[in-house]
Amino acid sequence: MIDELMKRIEEKGNPTMVGLDTTLELIPRELVQQHQGTCGDPIEETLQAILAFNKEIIQYIKDVVPAVKIQVAMYEQYGWQGIRTYQETIDDAKKQGLMVVGDIKRGDISSTAEAYSSHLGGITLNHMEMDLWKEDWITVNPYFGTDGMNPFLQKCRTHGKGLFVLVKTSNPSGKEIQDLVCGNQKVYEVIGDLVEKWGMPLRGRYGYSSVGAVVGAPHPEQGAILRKSMPHTFFLVPGYGAQGGGGISLKSYFDKAGKGAVIHSARGILGAHSHDKRYVWNQFGEAAREAALAMKKEVTRYL
Amino acid sequence: MIDELMKRIEEKGNPTMVGLDTTLELIPRELVQQHQGTCGDPIEETLQAILAFNKEIIQYIKDVVPAVKIQVAMYEQYGWQGIRTYQETIDDAKKQGLMVVGDIKRGDISSTAEAYSSHLGGITLNHMEMDLWKEDWITVNPYFGTDGMNPFLQKCRTHGKGLFVLVKTSNPSGKEIQDLVCGNQKVYEVIGDLVEKWGMPLRGRYGYSSVGAVVGAPHPEQGAILRKSMPHTFFLVPGYGAQGGGGISLKSYFDKAGKGAVIHSARGILGAHSHDKRYVWNQFGEAAREAALAMKKEVTRYL
Repeated sequence: MIDELMKRIEEKGNPTMVGLDTTLELIPRELVQQHQGTCGDPIEETLQAILAFNKEIIQYIKDVVPAVKIQVAMYEQYGWQGIRTYQETIDDAKKQGLMVVGDIKRGDISSTAEAYSSHLGGITLNHMEMDLWKEDWITVNPYFGTDGMNPFLQKCRTHGKGLFVLVKTSNPSGKEIQDLVCGNQKVYEVIGDLVEKWGMPLRGRYGYSSVGAVVGAPHPEQGAILRKSMPHTFFLVPGYGAQGGGGISLKSYFDKAGKGAVIHSARGILGAHSHDKRYVWNQFGEAAREAALAMKKEVTRYL
Repeated sequence: MIDELMKRIEEKGNPTMVGLDTTLELIPRELVQQHQGTCGDPIEETLQAILAFNKEIIQYIKDVVPAVKIQVAMYEQYGWQGIRTYQETIDDAKKQGLMVVGDIKRGDISSTAEAYSSHLGGITLNHMEMDLWKEDWITVNPYFGTDGMNPFLQKCRTHGKGLFVLVKTSNPSGKEIQDLVCGNQKVYEVIGDLVEKWGMPLRGRYGYSSVGAVVGAPHPEQGAILRKSMPHTFFLVPGYGAQGGGGISLKSYFDKAGKGAVIHSARGILGAHSHDKRYVWNQFGEAAREAALAMKKEVTRYL
């Protein structure tokens, strides 16, 4: 899976991805209104607007980025209907040729992680394998340690999928636990070492493994340290734009060849239409495309 | 919320709960077969069997236990249809007068945690508040620290709900991260202190707060230490039975008055019918009830 992601980044000359973390606030009011009153269920109508928005964004960015990341929480807040929209968004992104990172941050004991690993490996019913979720990658929370990770790692091997494990998160309070000093390492560095170990049997042809890490963008100096200590781990770097990271500080997440990381932005791309007066409301796709191209230019400028 | 849980534990004389972590392996084959071929969609048919099983279990245990815990992963593996069954199971448990702990172990940065907190606070659409999930409590993962917890804590205050925060998990590898020594504390003890702090504004009349902790049962000596250092934190103790904990070792999780903890078992109760020859397949409800009563007796014997 890592080779495929790196190939697509190379082809598009673009180590960034767009987050379809779609909330009502990001969608033009007019689009929401178009769907109001169509079926009498406000949840269903809202989700129709969200799906229409996502599909349009996908059309406009599909030749720009190698992958999209989809934050399941933004869909889960609408209950099972929202989860259906999450799955429909994945379906559409895959049909349009994009890789999909399911940002689900699941993690549990092994029997439960086995059930969650259906995100990568599907389920088997009546001897039929069914791939219901279809994510290529998912994000996972490592708090349960190796036995909680094993079902996910197993699916990476058997189904050619990939993981991004939370190592250093982009929010201010992340340090309360992640930066605790244990002997001569911080907690997130210990987890970094575990991620390197978990990825060892899953290394691809460029030396990186299908077990990547989430490393937050507001911490470039920590990024540089982790880049060095995790030479086989590909980084997913959130927090570009809206969360404060950007520009030259992103360089530290990449290796000397300008590889080894993919930068992610959601709100800055999806909401581009609302802070650029050149666009009328139904040009939100064009606005997102331009913002995605600007992110590509900004990120690749320093590599 | 904590006062309500403690009141119900008192009323039923039973500090245990049953986990509706329902998998196909736990359901009598005959029940599954009854639903096969009814609608042509194997996912839908499987979920009908799971829901029928859950409803029967709920009928048989509703006067025995104060609450059920529902592991969302067992439903999520079936995609959006599974999530619908998860919500239907919650609905039924609440209608039958049980409290519900949603075992979802979510956790993320604050904007995302805000979306996840809909599990406790519902969502507002067109100025209408809608409570789609209806859990009374949820489990959460603390890896993001205070700002990732704030949306959940906020919903506890505004909607009278409760949390169980992962502190010490019951699986063997949990120690890889949780038992790291930072200064004079282990990571899980640092998190324990955070949980005490987060719960301070949410303390009820018995001194315990609505911010509880998940503390795994195979670690009674750690349970005793945490019981002492977290005097205001109610414990959810998983791992009774199937995961190895049980009997007198559980005593350490309770305070001197025999309060402060609730013990949880899933597989041992749901699967009771399959290892007791007195029951034919459609008596799985009776078998579960007897197993739940045995758990109650075993746990209360030492308090």
